[in-house]
This record gives sequence, structure tokens and C-alpha cells, in this order.
Amino acid sequence: MSSSKISPLAPKTYPEMPAIDGVRLSTAAAGIKYKDRTDVLMAVLEPGTVVAGVFTRSKCPSAPVEWCRKNLRSKSARALVVNSGNANAFTGRTGREAAQFTAALASKAVRCKSGEVFLASTGVIGEPLKAQAFAGVMDGLVARAVPGAYLEAARAIMTTDTFPKIATATARLGKAKVTINGIAKGAGMIAPDMATMLSFVFTDAPVSAPVLQKLLNESVVDTFNAITVDSDTSTSDTLLAFATGKAAARGAPKVTKASDPRLKEFRKAFTRVLANLSEQVARDGEGARKLVEVVVEGAVSKASARRIAMSIANSPLVKTAIAGEDANWGRVVMAVGKAGEPADRDRLSIWFNGIRVAHRGGRDPGYDEAKMSAAMTAQEISIKVALGLGRARDRVLTCDLTKDYVAINGDYRS
Amino acid sequence: MSSSKISPLAPKTYPEMPAIDGVRLSTAAAGIKYKDRTDVLMAVLEPGTVVAGVFTRSKCPSAPVEWCRKNLRSKSARALVVNSGNANAFTGRTGREAAQFTAALASKAVRCKSGEVFLASTGVIGEPLKAQAFAGVMDGLVARAVPGAYLEAARAIMTTDTFPKIATATARLGKAKVTINGIAKGAGMIAPDMATMLSFVFTDAPVSAPVLQKLLNESVVDTFNAITVDSDTSTSDTLLAFATGKAAARGAPKVTKASDPRLKEFRKAFTRVLANLSEQVARDGEGARKLVEVVVEGAVSKASARRIAMSIANSPLVKTAIAGEDANWGRVVMAVGKAGEPADRDRLSIWFNGIRVAHRGGRDPGYDEAKMSAAMTAQEISIKVALGLGRARDRVLTCDLTKDYVAINGDYRS
Repeated sequence: MSSSKISPLAPKTYPEMPAIDGVRLSTAAAGIKYKDRTDVLMAVLEPGTVVAGVFTRSKCPSAPVEWCRKNLRSKSARALVVNSGNANAFTGRTGREAAQFTAALASKAVRCKSGEVFLASTGVIGEPLKAQAFAGVMDGLVARAVPGAYLEAARAIMTTDTFPKIATATARLGKAKVTINGIAKGAGMIAPDMATMLSFVFTDAPVSAPVLQKLLNESVVDTFNAITVDSDTSTSDTLLAFATGKAAARGAPKVTKASDPRLKEFRKAFTRVLANLSEQVARDGEGARKLVEVVVEGAVSKASARRIAMSIANSPLVKTAIAGEDANWGRVVMAVGKAGEPADRDRLSIWFNGIRVAHRGGRDPGYDEAKMSAAMTAQEISIKVALGLGRARDRVLTCDLTKDYVAINGDYRS
Repeated sequence: MSSSKISPLAPKTYPEMPAIDGVRLSTAAAGIKYKDRTDVLMAVLEPGTVVAGVFTRSKCPSAPVEWCRKNLRSKSARALVVNSGNANAFTGRTGREAAQFTAALASKAVRCKSGEVFLASTGVIGEPLKAQAFAGVMDGLVARAVPGAYLEAARAIMTTDTFPKIATATARLGKAKVTINGIAKGAGMIAPDMATMLSFVFTDAPVSAPVLQKLLNESVVDTFNAITVDSDTSTSDTLLAFATGKAAARGAPKVTKASDPRLKEFRKAFTRVLANLSEQVARDGEGARKLVEVVVEGAVSKASARRIAMSIANSPLVKTAIAGEDANWGRVVMAVGKAGEPADRDRLSIWFNGIRVAHRGGRDPGYDEAKMSAAMTAQEISIKVALGLGRARDRVLTCDLTKDYVAINGDYRS
């Protein structure tokens, strides 16, 4: 594993994470797989906390994903337990039992129903999770939980991540200030049509569970669902949002309709946190040295633009070209062509970092290889494709495909 | 480019390629892109030759693909001109003119209609093809064309290929022996939903154009459409079959119906040639060190089995694990799950090279890591997945994903 080297695309600084009323966090080293590091995160949530979630669309989801899906119906959450090192996926009945056992431990420690405990696991697939390891740390996790420990929380859930991922935003809700904090992990096995890797978002806003779910569904479309590292979709992808409602005590109105105009600022801040976290996941793509934005304009619909953008962003040939600092727009044409969406070769124009390289079906007459090569050394690359067919637009984020990706994934288990 | 090193998966010997009545081949060095090697292939076909073809499904096809599609309607072929080094794709009006110019040169040299000239180009996308380079070599190509030059032909159309690809088979048609010879090129940008890279198949069997087209459509399903190197689909993929009919002079019956029972042996031999060539393409996957067979059984339909098999074969995480000689069946579960096809985690069983590693949704109780690790050092890896849902089965071929793939594609243009 090459996870000791921090990605060159990592943020240079971390934000101060304010406390959120009703949320306390702690971490522990249970020795699930890693040595000398934390691998369990516990969030203790005050009574009244509501929850919403989106999950992987994998047909073979992990035991914790099935557990969360089932308990989401109750809409009430009192605890979140996350471990790294083992995904508890494809572990059959043993896996379900491990999830039940973990939830039972947490419910006893927090004094809530086990259905109010939410779980997530990340790491190797197919190895039985030894949930007994949690027994020795659970009471301590609850006892030591403190309001501000978001950075530590983000560290405890890392696997091949090279840096912890945190984000925060505030918004006015009525006359009160509410806060949204989020953490995430994920570096490989990142693809569309899923919630995300693991991400957990907390707020003190007094929004109802259905409102929170609606906001989450809206916000993932152009954030976590608009990133891809390697087109692979995890069995464990989980994004949970928790709202403690504690800002009501400071005068925030209780919001029970997603269409409530008072949500405007909150909605934006909520999406901003998700966008920030998902960009960090793309920045930490396994082996990544360049962050790549793909913008598709002039498509017949947003869905069509998304499919073309993802075809470009997932193309190994495009991604290796970027790694080689080669503005190989021929491969972009290839990726547009293979998407199966409406496209007319003779209307296509393509830009790399603002430099037009192809115009209406052929090489740009003013194409300057030296100028383009210089621009391709940048750490952030933007590929823009104008289809010239309609007015729809989309944007996705990815990273380049380097030899390090192969190295990291060729010996992950060893 | 690392194309000087021959793939470790290359065939150890080449077959003797017999002559086919009515087909003469020659090659030349026109200096399109490469130095000190041949880069043009000409096949001169006797009058009466019929043609069939399948092409890329890219929405941005190359000029030669459009040219061939248009002329396929005439069903008659007298010449094939193929160049390597430049794909003449995404070259707009210039590209169409280059195709027309090349066909005009060939039709003059062979004395046929330009609509009877078939074209294919492979190499860099987006660079204008300087078809004038063909003017100096065309008459010589026709004059020097000889019956047996298949290996030289296969060499002239190579790009990142590390070895030329040829195959031959014979079959009885009526009381006569007929021959099928094929050549192919392709190493990257290989994916399903297309015809193939470039492949050209020749036979002396007196089959009609519609029969040849039917045979081709049937045969590509489990050959060229069942291989993938990197999930990328070229703008130029072309598979053409030519039948000279010359075996009629030796007593072969003229066949005008694809259902004709006399075709039985020919049909098998024809498919065998395509299977042989397509396997060679997978064996020459860019950077490949291992040939990977993916077999999916117990699916609800063949189409569903194909999609699951392709999801596994195209997964960067599965392919890098194979490169690392790691029987990481957790990633196979992931790839099954993300295919979106019916699958039940708790019925899944998985084998690597005959060793069952997972059984009915969990690790195989008899799993032996040391034994499995030893087996993974083999040059050919077979991944079998039993879904336990139905009776349908499918098989695809791919290769591993190595650092060399990244190296080859990171500096292809430089």
C-alpha cells in the first residue's frame, strides 16, 4: 500500500470544524486490520435526531448497507458506528450477525433501540468481520465522545485515503445560524450510480426526516454522483445525513416541507458541503496526480450530457493521456463516440484548460502543440466538449490514471 | 512506445498460410508515420468477390468506416487498402477527401470502380491523413501482389501490437475443400459493442454476400464482441470478410441461403478463425501479462451473463488484482453487483483457475490462501462465477491491467 504518501492534490489546510449541538464523536483503535491507528468511529446523537441516507446501487450490498436501509424507515438515529479495515461485505449470515452484534453493543452503550444505531464498514470484501473487537471499546467510545472531533473521525475511517476529508458550512435558517459538518472517505472503487464511498453529514437544523432525505437526494446528483475514479462501484457506498434539530432552541424554525422557501440558504450550504467532500474524494483518487474536470455542453439533455461526461471521465485511454500530460483529444472524440448518446462528429469542439484543440469535427486551425503541452503540466485539467446539439450541460470530476493506481490495487491485500 | 517488446502471451508459432484463389496481397512503406517499416496493405481481389462487414458502433466513426458502410451496399469488392499510423478519424471534410483520393488511386491501379475499393485506417485520431503518400506506392502494390503474403500483411497494419495476428482454417463445402484466412490488429481501445479492431478475413468459398454477412453477424457475437482490453471503443473498428467464390471451379456449390445445411462445417471453421484472431487481440492487450477468461454461469439470460462478464472483465480493480496475482474475489463480487443485472449475493460462487474461493455468498470454507496464490502465478487465469439463478452462460476474454498499459498510453503520441 502506498497510502503513506499524501496526494499532491490534497487540500493545503483543513477548516476549523465547529461543534454541532447534539453530536459527539469519538474514535478508537480496535485492531480490526490496521496496527497503530484508529479504526472505529462512534457518533453519539441526542434524542430527536432524524436521519436520511443514500446507498450503493450494487446488487450485492454489504451487511451494514442492508442494516441501514432497513432502519432508515424508523427515521430516528441515536448512534453511528463506522469501522475501517473490513467492509463486512459478501460475508453471508456471519456478516448479518456481525452487524446485529455491533448494533446491540452500541444500543446498550448509548441506551437506545438497536434500530436507532446506524452502521458502516469499509475495507476488504469477503473477510469475516470480527465484531467482538468492538466489545472492548464501545463503552469507552461513548464515554469519551466530544463535540468537535471531526478531523479525528475522518482519520478513523480512512483506508487507501491519503488524507482525511472534512468540510463545514453555515447558513441562516429563519433568524438562527445553523451548521453543517461532513466527513468522507474514499479513494478507489468510486463511480457513478451510487451514493458515495462513506460520508456522514451532521447538522443542527430542525428539518424533518423527509425533508432531509429530499435534500440529500437532490444534492448527491451533482456532487457524489458526479465523481468517478475508476468506474467501479463499491458494495458499501453509504452517505448518511443526521439532523439533531438542536438549533430550534436558538430560534430556527422547524421545517417539514422541502419546498419551504426558508430552506434556500440551508439547501445551498448543504450542497456545498457535499460538493466539497466529493471533490476531495476525486482529489484523493488512488495514484492521482491531476484533478480532471469534464464539462459537456450543447447536449440534448442533462442525462445525455452526464453519460457522455462519464464516458470521457471513465475512459482509461483519456485518463492515461492526462497522466502523460498529453492533450490527446482524439481519445475524447472516441469517448464521446462510445457513449451511445446523440453526437455529431462534425459539430464537436473540444478544449483543454481553455485552449480549443478541435473545432467542428477537425483539429483547430490555430492549434499550437507547444502551448498546449505547457498547459497540460497543470495540476488541474479541465476538458470541455461542446456538442452543438442542444442546450443541456453537465460536469463531472475525476482524476488521471497513473502507474501508482495499478501499484496500489495490484497489492492491496498483501 | 513499448511496442518493441513482444507480449509474453504471443503465440509461440505462426501457422503456414495457404494461398486463397482470387486473393493477392502486398505491402509497402509509405512513411505515413513510422520509419523503417511497412504501413500500407493492399489486397487485390478477383472479379466476382463479394464482401460483408461489421463496424464500430461509435457515434463518431472514422472516414474509412463511413466509406466502407456506404460501399457495402454494392456487395462487390476488388481491392482493400489499409494503412497504419493514422486513423483518418475526426478529420472532417479533409478526411472524407483523403478516403476518396485513396480509393480513386486504388481503383485506377486495379481497374475497378472506386465503390469496389474498401478502406481502413488505424493509428492516431485527429491528425489529417496525407493520402498523397499512397500515390507513389499504389501501382507497385498492385504489381507486386502475391497469393501467400498474409504474415507480411498482418505486420503492415500493426500499431501498438507487439506481434502480427494471423489464422487459417479449412472446411469441406460440398465435395470441395475451401480455405479461410484471416489477419487482425488491435491491442488497446478494445471493447464490446463494436465489430473489432481491424480484421480482414478471406475465403474462396462461393457464398453470396447476404450469406457472408449473416455468417459474420453470427460469428462476431462470441468472438470479437466477446473481448475487451480497456472498455474503450475505437472510432475505426472494422471487420471485413471477402469471398472470392473461386472454389466453385473445384466443385464447391454456390450457397445463397445462410440456412443451407451444407454450410455446417464452413460456419464452424469461419467462427474458429474469428475466435482465434480475437483471442490473439486479447493476448496482445497493451501491457498485458496475463490472459483472463471470465465465465458467467447460472444467469437468467445470455445477455445478462454477457453484461456481468463484461462488468468483471472491464473492472480496473479486478484487472489490477490479476496483475498483482491476487485472487481478490471480493472485487469480482463488486463487479457482479455493479452490473445492474439480476444477482443474489447469497447464491454466488466464484472460482479462480478451478479453485473455488467463494461459495453461496461467503468465503469458501476450504479456502487455502497459499494454494490459491500459487495458482495465480499462471499466465492464463480463468474466473468463473456461478450466479445460481438460471441456466444461461457466457464467456469473454480480457487481460490484466499493468503499469505498462499506463506507460504505453501515457506517451503514445510522444
